[in-house]
Amino acid sequence: MLGEIIAVGDELTSGRTLNTNSFYAAGHLFAAGHEIIAMATVRDTPAEIGAALKRAIDRADFVIVTGGLGPTSDDLTNEAVSRALGLPTTFYPEVLGRIKSQRAHRPDQKSRDLEKLAWLPEGAEILKPETSIAGYLLVHHEKPVFFLPGIPHQMKELLADKVIPRLALWKGGFVHCVRQKIFKTFGITETEINRKLKHLENRDQNVRIGYYPVFPDVHLSLTVIDADLKKVEQLFQQYVAEIHTLLADSIFGVDEETMADVVGRLLSGQGKTLAVAESCSGGLVAHKITKVAGSSQYFLGGVVAYHNEFKRKFLGVENELLQKHGAVSGPTAQAMAAGIRGLAKADIGIAVTGIAGPTGGSVEKPVGTVFFGLASHGNTRDFRFAFAGDRWQIQELSAQTALELVRRLLLDKLIANNEKEGRH
Amino acid sequence: MLGEIIAVGDELTSGRTLNTNSFYAAGHLFAAGHEIIAMATVRDTPAEIGAALKRAIDRADFVIVTGGLGPTSDDLTNEAVSRALGLPTTFYPEVLGRIKSQRAHRPDQKSRDLEKLAWLPEGAEILKPETSIAGYLLVHHEKPVFFLPGIPHQMKELLADKVIPRLALWKGGFVHCVRQKIFKTFGITETEINRKLKHLENRDQNVRIGYYPVFPDVHLSLTVIDADLKKVEQLFQQYVAEIHTLLADSIFGVDEETMADVVGRLLSGQGKTLAVAESCSGGLVAHKITKVAGSSQYFLGGVVAYHNEFKRKFLGVENELLQKHGAVSGPTAQAMAAGIRGLAKADIGIAVTGIAGPTGGSVEKPVGTVFFGLASHGNTRDFRFAFAGDRWQIQELSAQTALELVRRLLLDKLIANNEKEGRH
Repeated sequence: MLGEIIAVGDELTSGRTLNTNSFYAAGHLFAAGHEIIAMATVRDTPAEIGAALKRAIDRADFVIVTGGLGPTSDDLTNEAVSRALGLPTTFYPEVLGRIKSQRAHRPDQKSRDLEKLAWLPEGAEILKPETSIAGYLLVHHEKPVFFLPGIPHQMKELLADKVIPRLALWKGGFVHCVRQKIFKTFGITETEINRKLKHLENRDQNVRIGYYPVFPDVHLSLTVIDADLKKVEQLFQQYVAEIHTLLADSIFGVDEETMADVVGRLLSGQGKTLAVAESCSGGLVAHKITKVAGSSQYFLGGVVAYHNEFKRKFLGVENELLQKHGAVSGPTAQAMAAGIRGLAKADIGIAVTGIAGPTGGSVEKPVGTVFFGLASHGNTRDFRFAFAGDRWQIQELSAQTALELVRRLLLDKLIANNEKEGRH
Repeated sequence: MLGEIIAVGDELTSGRTLNTNSFYAAGHLFAAGHEIIAMATVRDTPAEIGAALKRAIDRADFVIVTGGLGPTSDDLTNEAVSRALGLPTTFYPEVLGRIKSQRAHRPDQKSRDLEKLAWLPEGAEILKPETSIAGYLLVHHEKPVFFLPGIPHQMKELLADKVIPRLALWKGGFVHCVRQKIFKTFGITETEINRKLKHLENRDQNVRIGYYPVFPDVHLSLTVIDADLKKVEQLFQQYVAEIHTLLADSIFGVDEETMADVVGRLLSGQGKTLAVAESCSGGLVAHKITKVAGSSQYFLGGVVAYHNEFKRKFLGVENELLQKHGAVSGPTAQAMAAGIRGLAKADIGIAVTGIAGPTGGSVEKPVGTVFFGLASHGNTRDFRFAFAGDRWQIQELSAQTALELVRRLLLDKLIANNEKEGRH
């Protein structure tokens, strides 16, 4: 079914509170086979709530309204609904009784404020009458309109327990089956992906492909929707396989996985350990790795060698080498990687040295020039990249590239430097 | 002025991506003296984008549209605008030229895809023509409509540099004089701040004070709005002074400053150098420091010592000490701080060791227990904190606390541990 979500609250329109309710509801409704055609956020103003509600009922098959159901003076959703839909407010004695018994231990709440909670638009069906959670269903023009509290955990509870089950059985509602997968890529542009997959885009009406740059990655979503579960399953498997073939190892992970998750999984699986030596990425590689719970199983540690003296003392990079080639160079990257690998007794050492900017660039090595060293059993290599962007972007690209190189090493899919260079 | 924000994207309506752009824009527009009357989120469907746009222009004084400006086939905002407002699309050769020169090192991008970016509705004024960031202003029925990219950091850049200044000077808009300051605090709760400042909140009608938890900090915004510039200036100075007096050194910075900026400024000013030793914060302290341009002036480097062997080899922490007190202990934190300070020949050494979770806690040292070591000339101390939250939150709190301790050391305002403990 096609739905619309309306969130009510001054705290949302003034940017004090991030609206996670609509996001959460949309994701779960989508997964249950529905499609949200629009989301609106309005102030605690009855005329505006009413206008949004009427417009939504007009164009959607169902509507979800969150917020404005509480006892305080700025909770005006019920009043707005009564006015907009021409429904008198009605007193629900059982609602008041339930609330009073639940709040017997809170004598500070004024009776008059609580009574407000029991005056609802005529025809309201309380969603969870066995609790004191506010929330009801109104059927208007044969369309279900759900009013849910703005308090996230209450909204989530009613959505899961009441809204989604009711919608699934809604008379006349067309029940879809949905499968979705997110493919995450790095080192390939949105345009390149788009070009490779263009022929898939409009091939089947019930298959959708979307592209989302989530810096520094590009994510791709595949969604298959149909009334026939078998058809959904068959199309889904077919497209997943095609996308994997077309993008091959540009896809580093799927769904919730991060690059660091994938690298961690590969290291664990192969029983290998990793240590890092960072200069321009300044600790970001180590930070990404250690964000993963359980990373102490394969991550030994790292050195952030910002000063040359630090590179010498903590990584054993020789002064001669630094003087001859410079701190930002292939030989230094190799020496850092070999140094950290040897000192930490790790299976793999990865090193990053470059110019994150905004200053420090030269004609030969402009801002964005980054060298990577990769040391593993019997082999030490270096890679040169030219990244574009500001300091933050160059650091992010550097850290993600370091992890990507480790991923490719573990998969035995390292690409020669000249192929990769300049991709970003 | 009254504004409306429209966010465009299937990834938003399907609940794949949380819409932080509208939230961010609303907060900053509010702080600049505007009011957002509604926010809409629509799919990548030209008819729906167009309808939302027309409705917004109808009821608001200005409109902000984010998303759908990119090169791929699902970026349809420009097409929707042209259709809805009856404006022919026009080719902007300078836009194409700028994009091509910026992407010269990315030969894989097809010209045709890039060309799409240069076809804009007639009358579009490019917001930042000196960059390749998409974004333009259209004036319709004398109302400004800003089209911004969906990529958050680009949207934020245009909002701050172009949209808010343009709106402030908009003809016909009721020109307010506005002064605003953001005060950033750490280690003090929103409720505490609220209690300290409550008497200021409703004292003057043209002064607004807002609280925004921006994890792990709490930010406070002061906005003074009036038609009379002199009055604004006088009130502004008065409130800034009062807030500084009331919150004292709980305020670590103002406006755009980060904690790492402030620490960097203090280190530079005092001609001192810093080195870090991290365990549970996993590189995040170093990352925060090195995000600041010019940090190589005072930051020598860091060691992320995840394994005990790493702590011994890279920081000189003795096995005996580790065995006696454990890796997560005051003595180990002190030894790490003194070790990194001595080896790096830094003026200040800061160390972090703790349990970020989700596993590894015990009754004596539950998840969230973090020790900090602080070594400076002739003095080495340790501090114990008990943080609440998930792994990510504990890491963020640990890193920010490490920087906060260095800030307080440099200001000679270190608070005894028993006062600080358990604040988070």
